[in-house]
Amino acid sequence: MSTKRKDDLFWIKEALQEALKSGNDVPIGAVIVCDGKIIGRGYNKREQECDISAHAEIIAIKQAEKTINNWRLTDAIIYTTLEPCPMCAEAIIQSRLAKVIFGAYDPINGAAGSSINLFDKNRKCYIPEIIGGINEIDCKKILVEFFSKRR
Amino acid sequence: MSTKRKDDLFWIKEALQEALKSGNDVPIGAVIVCDGKIIGRGYNKREQECDISAHAEIIAIKQAEKTINNWRLTDAIIYTTLEPCPMCAEAIIQSRLAKVIFGAYDPINGAAGSSINLFDKNRKCYIPEIIGGINEIDCKKILVEFFSKRR
Repeated sequence: MSTKRKDDLFWIKEALQEALKSGNDVPIGAVIVCDGKIIGRGYNKREQECDISAHAEIIAIKQAEKTINNWRLTDAIIYTTLEPCPMCAEAIIQSRLAKVIFGAYDPINGAAGSSINLFDKNRKCYIPEIIGGINEIDCKKILVEFFSKRR
Repeated sequence: MSTKRKDDLFWIKEALQEALKSGNDVPIGAVIVCDGKIIGRGYNKREQECDISAHAEIIAIKQAEKTINNWRLTDAIIYTTLEPCPMCAEAIIQSRLAKVIFGAYDPINGAAGSSINLFDKNRKCYIPEIIGGINEIDCKKILVEFFSKRR
């Protein structure tokens, strides 16, 4: 599924808007887009919800599944501000999302190659397309600012 | 955290009871035990809930987090009938569960070494203890029966 760079920038900025809602949680946001419309949104709520699975991507996936009443998100793209962790990467793979576009790389726990690679084409399962580093500077900046304020 | 083989068998049988509730979903069950009590239970509800994240382990983790009002399940053990997939394995790791005990191995998508190993001690994160193959025959049997009925 090919997307225009201009569109990718537009949607990753929407994901950034989600990230800004995270409050006391690490600011990470995601949107899921299908046919030019957002069908799922989410921001990190781990602390707020006291739930390890309340990552932006999982919340967006759950909302998208409800929107189209199907857990197979075959025709949709997920835009997320940070490289997905292994939990979210596998949720993305299992939900058959067509494509993953992310902003900042996560050297600590990124599962698209930075720490581990769950999107390895040699795995015996469906693997979506993946592009990283879209609007990387802004996506990284909100994280750096968040952690510098906490110190 | 050391556990007695007799206790492990007892709790994995509780997880099996959960698995039997899965209905039209692939029968997989999990319980989370802390100080000799179950603080979280779950069975696979992917189809029932139309939710890719509704795996037994994630549901049990969410319930346990609510029970103790903390996403850090540091003193608890998860018993699951099937080797966790990468999504559940990472949820287990991030929730700091002390130990993972599972029944059947999953050569297709098991993330404790059968397909991929997220519990690799070389990863730069907390890794729980892990034991597989407890009551393996019964845990595998319900899966084999489920899939043979579907054919």
